[in-house]
Amino acid sequence: MCRFTLYLGPDIRLASLLLEPDHSLIRQSTHSREREEPLNGDGFGVGWYARGLAPEPAVFRSITPAWNNRNLHNLARVVASDCILAHVRAATQSSGVNEPNCHPFRYQRYLFMHNGDVGNFRQVRRRMLESVCDEAFANVYGSTDSEHFFALCIDELLGQPLERPPLERLAHALKAALARVVRLVAAHGDDEPSYMNCALADGDHAVVSRYTNATTDSPESLYYFHGALYPAIADATRQAGHASHARHPVIVSSERLTADPDWQPIPPNYMVLVSRGHAPELRALEF
Amino acid sequence: MCRFTLYLGPDIRLASLLLEPDHSLIRQSTHSREREEPLNGDGFGVGWYARGLAPEPAVFRSITPAWNNRNLHNLARVVASDCILAHVRAATQSSGVNEPNCHPFRYQRYLFMHNGDVGNFRQVRRRMLESVCDEAFANVYGSTDSEHFFALCIDELLGQPLERPPLERLAHALKAALARVVRLVAAHGDDEPSYMNCALADGDHAVVSRYTNATTDSPESLYYFHGALYPAIADATRQAGHASHARHPVIVSSERLTADPDWQPIPPNYMVLVSRGHAPELRALEF
Amino acid sequence: MCRFTLYLGPDIRLASLLLEPDHSLIRQSTHSREREEPLNGDGFGVGWYARGLAPEPAVFRSITPAWNNRNLHNLARVVASDCILAHVRAATQSSGVNEPNCHPFRYQRYLFMHNGDVGNFRQVRRRMLESVCDEAFANVYGSTDSEHFFALCIDELLGQPLERPPLERLAHALKAALARVVRLVAAHGDDEPSYMNCALADGDHAVVSRYTNATTDSPESLYYFHGALYPAIADATRQAGHASHARHPVIVSSERLTADPDWQPIPPNYMVLVSRGHAPELRALEF
Amino acid sequence: MCRFTLYLGPDIRLASLLLEPDHSLIRQSTHSREREEPLNGDGFGVGWYARGLAPEPAVFRSITPAWNNRNLHNLARVVASDCILAHVRAATQSSGVNEPNCHPFRYQRYLFMHNGDVGNFRQVRRRMLESVCDEAFANVYGSTDSEHFFALCIDELLGQPLERPPLERLAHALKAALARVVRLVAAHGDDEPSYMNCALADGDHAVVSRYTNATTDSPESLYYFHGALYPAIADATRQAGHASHARHPVIVSSERLTADPDWQPIPPNYMVLVSRGHAPELRALEF
Repeated sequence: MCRFTLYLGPDIRLASLLLEPDHSLIRQSTHSREREEPLNGDGFGVGWYARGLAPEPAVFRSITPAWNNRNLHNLARVVASDCILAHVRAATQSSGVNEPNCHPFRYQRYLFMHNGDVGNFRQVRRRMLESVCDEAFANVYGSTDSEHFFALCIDELLGQPLERPPLERLAHALKAALARVVRLVAAHGDDEPSYMNCALADGDHAVVSRYTNATTDSPESLYYFHGALYPAIADATRQAGHASHARHPVIVSSERLTADPDWQPIPPNYMVLVSRGHAPELRALEF
Repeated sequence: MCRFTLYLGPDIRLASLLLEPDHSLIRQSTHSREREEPLNGDGFGVGWYARGLAPEPAVFRSITPAWNNRNLHNLARVVASDCILAHVRAATQSSGVNEPNCHPFRYQRYLFMHNGDVGNFRQVRRRMLESVCDEAFANVYGSTDSEHFFALCIDELLGQPLERPPLERLAHALKAALARVVRLVAAHGDDEPSYMNCALADGDHAVVSRYTNATTDSPESLYYFHGALYPAIADATRQAGHASHARHPVIVSSERLTADPDWQPIPPNYMVLVSRGHAPELRALEF
Repeated sequence: MCRFTLYLGPDIRLASLLLEPDHSLIRQSTHSREREEPLNGDGFGVGWYARGLAPEPAVFRSITPAWNNRNLHNLARVVASDCILAHVRAATQSSGVNEPNCHPFRYQRYLFMHNGDVGNFRQVRRRMLESVCDEAFANVYGSTDSEHFFALCIDELLGQPLERPPLERLAHALKAALARVVRLVAAHGDDEPSYMNCALADGDHAVVSRYTNATTDSPESLYYFHGALYPAIADATRQAGHASHARHPVIVSSERLTADPDWQPIPPNYMVLVSRGHAPELRALEF
Repeated sequence: MCRFTLYLGPDIRLASLLLEPDHSLIRQSTHSREREEPLNGDGFGVGWYARGLAPEPAVFRSITPAWNNRNLHNLARVVASDCILAHVRAATQSSGVNEPNCHPFRYQRYLFMHNGDVGNFRQVRRRMLESVCDEAFANVYGSTDSEHFFALCIDELLGQPLERPPLERLAHALKAALARVVRLVAAHGDDEPSYMNCALADGDHAVVSRYTNATTDSPESLYYFHGALYPAIADATRQAGHASHARHPVIVSSERLTADPDWQPIPPNYMVLVSRGHAPELRALEF
C-alpha cells in the first residue's frame, strides 16, 4: 500500500504540492492517517510535464525515503509544472525496493501510479503478461503488480479508437484494464480481492480510480479538491507569477493535504475524470 | 535520536540478533516503542569483528532503511560474529543522510555508535574539533554530532596510560569524553542538554552509557541482557555449531529485544561495562 | 559486456580474490584489457557460500561501481568462503542499472552470472519467458537478458533426472539452456549472434561456458587457473588458518588475475567443469 | 581529478549542454581525453539557477556515475536554465564517494566546483578550517579538499566590501582564496603542489581559474567558448523558444565539448571572468 497525489492546473512549484501543505505527501510518507500502518518509506517518485521543453514527462524516482532525499527537496523548490504525479511507496513483501519498482511509471506521454495491490499477484503475474501486446510487454522492467497492471492499461490505450477524445481514452482504458485484472484474478488467483486506486494521466487529462472488489472491506482512501486554491498553493502560485492563470486546479490525493473544506471523498468504486480547465466528473466503475 | 544494539558473546549470526527476535532492531526501525516517534529510517549500519580474519572490524552502512535493504538481510543470514554493533538512524534536521553520517563509526579496532544528540551542536561543533589531537581530527569525515563526539573519545583513548587494562581504557575514555562535551556545551552552547547513549567497543570489551544532563527529562531508554540465552539466539548459536561456548553473552539495546525477564534497565546516568566471559558491571557517571 | 571471476577451493577472504591480485576484478572494473571498452562500472555483485551457516548462498549487489564501494572493500576484508562468484557489469543500453539487474543471480542454492548478451533480446525476451515453467518464471525480477537466460537454466535444472550427479546436472542444464536460447534467437531474433560466457554453481560444483554463435567473431575472453596457489591467495589462505586444506583451488575468470603461467584459456565454444577437489575438465559445446 | 562544465547564457535545456554535444560532460565521464586516466565515475552533480522560482540555485548530486543515472537523463531533458554548473568526479583515494563530497557545492546563491587537488590536504585540512569564519566553517559537511577550499572562498566572499560589483567580488574572493591555500600548503603541507581549476558563480556572473603552483607541470586543461552558438545548443535553444535571446552564451569546460573552432584554451595561471551579456575577460593569477 502507498500514498499518492495528482495535480492538474496552472503551474505550481512541486514544493507547494509535495512539501508545504500541512498534510503533504512528504508528511504522509511518515505519518499517513488513513492506513493501518503510517509509514511509506520504500522509495518514492515524482513525474511531471514540462510544457514546451519535451513531449514526454520527466520522472524522478529513488529508493531512499522521500522525507530525507535532498535531491527531491532541491528539485521541488525550483521545478514548476502544470501536471504532477507523486507517489510514496510502502512495498509489499514480494517485490523489492529498486528504481524500476518505484512509481510513477511512464509510457510515451502517459504516467501511471497505483496504491493497493492486485489479488494473488504471484499467481496472476504470468497471465497478465501473456494477455498484453508486445508493445505493452516491452514496457515492463520490474516486478511490481502495479507496473504489470500498467501494461494492461497500455494495452487498452493502444486498442482505443483514434477518434475517441483523450479523456475518454484514458477513462475507457483504465476501466477496461480494471475489468481485465478482476477477471484474471477470478480465473487464476483464487479470486483474492484487489485494491486498485490508480492514476493515469497524459498531461492535460487524468483519471483516478478508487476501487476494490473486496466484499467486506472498503477501497483505500481517496479525495479530490477543486475550487479556490488553498492558501499554500495559492501563495506559491502567486510567487511563481502565475496567479492570473490560477483557475480550476484539481488535486486528487490518497489523503487530504489540508483542512480546507473543499476536499471531497471519491465514492467507493468510482473514478474521477479530470480535464484541464473543467470541473472534475465522477463516474461509477461497474463491470 | 536512534536505536542501537550491541552484542558480546559466542559467535551468532547477525540475523539472530538483528532480524529474528520479536522486537529486533529491524522491528525497531519502523516500530520503536520507547521514543515519541517510532521511525528510525534514515540509514543504518552494522559493525562486527571477524576473529582470525582481520584485526579491524568490518562496517556495513547504508543510506536506505534497514527494513528493506536486501544486502543487509543477505549478510545477516550468513555472517556470524562474537562482537556486533548495529544501529538504525533517525537523523536530526541538521545533518544529512549519507554513509559518512551512518553509525557505527570506526577508528582502528574501535567501533562507536550513539543514540541522542549533543546540545546545541551547531555552536559547539567547532570547539569540539579544536579540542582534539590531529589523529582524532583526521578521523572525522561527516557532519554528525555523533562522529564529532567519537573524535573526543579517540582523543581520550590515545591519551590513556598504556598499562591500563582494555576495559578500563574504554570506560575512562568514554567518561572523560562525556565530561568534556558537557563542559563544551556549557561554555559555548548555552548549556542546552545533551542526550548521550553511547557504545564504545574493541571486540572483547565494551562500555555503553545511558546519560543526559537534562534536568527535567530522562535519558533515552537502554537495557542490558545477561543470563541464559533466549531461545532465538540459543537456537541460532546451536545451529552455528558453537553451543558449547555459549556462556555469558551480553546484549545492550535501546529497547528490549524479547519478553525475556532477564532484561534489565540501565539506571539513568550510569554506564555498563562489558567484558568477554564476565558479568556486566554498572558504574555511575558522575563528573 | 562485463567481467567475472569464479572461485572454488579452500576458504579464502574475498579480498584475496577480488582486490589483491595485480589484475583483480576490481582492477578490471576500470581497466579490463580484453574488451574494446575497459570500463565495467554499472554496478557489481558478489555471491558466496557460507558453509555451516546457511544452505543458500549470500549475495551482495550494488548499483555503484565496485572500485569505490566501501561496503564491498569492508566485506572483502573479513568474509572468507570456499566458493565465490563475483561480477562487474557494463550495462547494455536496453537495461537499466538497478539491483535486480546486477549479477550474480540466485535461485535456491544456485548462483549464476553472465558476460555477453543474448542476440536481439528485445525480440526474444517474451519467447524466453513463455518457454519456462512457473517456478523459473517467478524467479525473474528485472529486465536483463542474463536473468532471463538464468530462467532457462532453472527450467533445465528442474527437469534433470534426480539420480544425475550434481556436476552433470549443472553441465546438462547449462548446455541445454544454451541450445534453447540459440534456437529461440534463430526463430524470433533474426539469428543475431549471442555471446554467452556463463557461470552456474551450487557451492561444490560449477560449470562455466565460453560460447558464441557469431560466425566472424570469437567468444569473450575466459581463462581458468588450477595448480599451486599463486602467492597472494596462498598468503591469504595461510593467514586464514586454512593452509592445510589448500589443495586444488580452481579460478575461472574473464581475464587472468595474475601473470602466473598456470592460467589457461578456455577454448572457444567449450565449457569448463569444476568440482571440489578434482581437476577441471574441458568439454566441447556442440548442439 | 575531475571534469566540469559551466554555462552562462540564454536558457538551454541541461541535455543540450551535458548530453548532446559530441564530447559532452557525460562523454567525458567515461572518455575524457586530457587526463591520464579517462574515467570520472565517482559520482556527479549539476547545479542550476531557476530564475523566478527560487533565489538559491538547485543542486542535484548522486554517488552513481553520470553516464548511467536515469534521473539525470530525465531531468536534463526537461530542465532549462540560464546558468548551469556540472561536474563529474574522479575521487582521490583519501575521500569517499558520498553526496556531501559531490560537486557543485552551494552556499546561499553561490555555487562552486573544483577539478584538481589541494597539495597535501590531509596535513593542511585542519589549518584551512581554522582559518575561516564561523559561517564558512558551518558550511562544511564532507571531507573533500574542494569543499574545504570553498570554505575559504566563502570566507573571502563575506569579507568583500559591499560596494564592490558582483563579478569583482567573485574574482577577488577566488584569487584571495587561492593565495591563502598556497600559503597554507607552503607553511603546513611541505609545499606540495596544488591543482586548482575552480568555478565560482552567482547566477549572473562566474569566475573560473586554471591554476597550479607545480613548477614542472601544467594546470589541468580548461577551455572557454564564446561566439555563435554551436549547432546542438542553438537547436535546443530554438526548440525551447528562447532563440531571440540567444546572445553571448559562454561555456567554460575542462575539455572542448565540440570541434567548433571558437573554443579557446585558458592560459596557465589565468582566470576567466564571465558576466551575463558581456564578452569573457582573461585575468592573470599572480600573487
